[in-house]
Amino acid sequence: MPLVVLSEQFAALPGIGMKTAQRLAYAVMEMPAEQAQAFADAILNARNNVHDCPICQNLTELSCCSICENVKRDHTTVCVVESPKDVTAIERTGEYHGVYHVLHGLISPLDGISPEQLRIDALLHRIREGGIQELIMATNPSVEGEATAMYLSRLIKPLGVKVTRLAFGLPVGGVIEYTDEVTLYRALSNRSEM
Amino acid sequence: MPLVVLSEQFAALPGIGMKTAQRLAYAVMEMPAEQAQAFADAILNARNNVHDCPICQNLTELSCCSICENVKRDHTTVCVVESPKDVTAIERTGEYHGVYHVLHGLISPLDGISPEQLRIDALLHRIREGGIQELIMATNPSVEGEATAMYLSRLIKPLGVKVTRLAFGLPVGGVIEYTDEVTLYRALSNRSEM
Repeated sequence: MPLVVLSEQFAALPGIGMKTAQRLAYAVMEMPAEQAQAFADAILNARNNVHDCPICQNLTELSCCSICENVKRDHTTVCVVESPKDVTAIERTGEYHGVYHVLHGLISPLDGISPEQLRIDALLHRIREGGIQELIMATNPSVEGEATAMYLSRLIKPLGVKVTRLAFGLPVGGVIEYTDEVTLYRALSNRSEM
Repeated sequence: MPLVVLSEQFAALPGIGMKTAQRLAYAVMEMPAEQAQAFADAILNARNNVHDCPICQNLTELSCCSICENVKRDHTTVCVVESPKDVTAIERTGEYHGVYHVLHGLISPLDGISPEQLRIDALLHRIREGGIQELIMATNPSVEGEATAMYLSRLIKPLGVKVTRLAFGLPVGGVIEYTDEVTLYRALSNRSEM
């Protein structure tokens, strides 16, 4: 039964069905023993040695994450995101030199997620410590993302910090004909002079 | 970097791209510590304690697999398959009561797989030991599957063993209109009286 047990472990991961889980379990069987060992070690190492950065709440294996620790980054600008995956995506642009704050979720009354469950206290603490001039709301353009951005904006503006939102418009390489009307409306109203 | 290392481990599995691997690595991060431990244990247990059955070559954690050991099964009929996954699929029908032989591959000159690399010697050894009356070729209806079935049939028929092949025809629930011509031809030529 070890193969069944392993298949069930894979199937417990998000988006992995029983068929795929079985295929992955067979792949593990065919690995060199060292690779299987490295795989098992990577799971335990990631689970046990990675924790939230005490400042920005992003995942890190260090006592403080490499972005918060980097003195070359602009610590007056904070980009507020939903999850660590968003940090990775924005870092890939190579164009953002500020720091981050990871909320670990979005306000969603339907899913029972209230502001208290997000890392908003830690964000307010950072702002009160001073030195932050701008907060960029980089939550998804979804109902929850918009609501969270609005909520934070109302909360933080009175503290004298500039709050901005990511631009909305046509995606690069997109086709106007196939663009949904909300995006097209945003692209029109946010048009810029050439 | 533990998350990057874990992502790379997931991405090394077949059919898992870098995006999915990253998603799975984050899922491991969010697991309870015991589940991560169970996952790592399952990998090592499957990889290190599962081996080929000395008789049928199927994967097992026992010294001899449960099908070969089962005296209630018909040991005179051997179903020859490409991989352990095929054994699982045929067992699911609940209608086959014979035993198996797993080749661990198909003859494929283009991929550099010659008959010597398959478990054909072990099959011949079983036949020479006597008691086997029928060999069912249950390889896929692909070029390699057909070639392997033909090769084994020519090799084994002279030893006085009946060699049969799985039936080809319309899949149950299939639609004639959308059936490819080769399958339709097989279904026509293998038609049976009502």
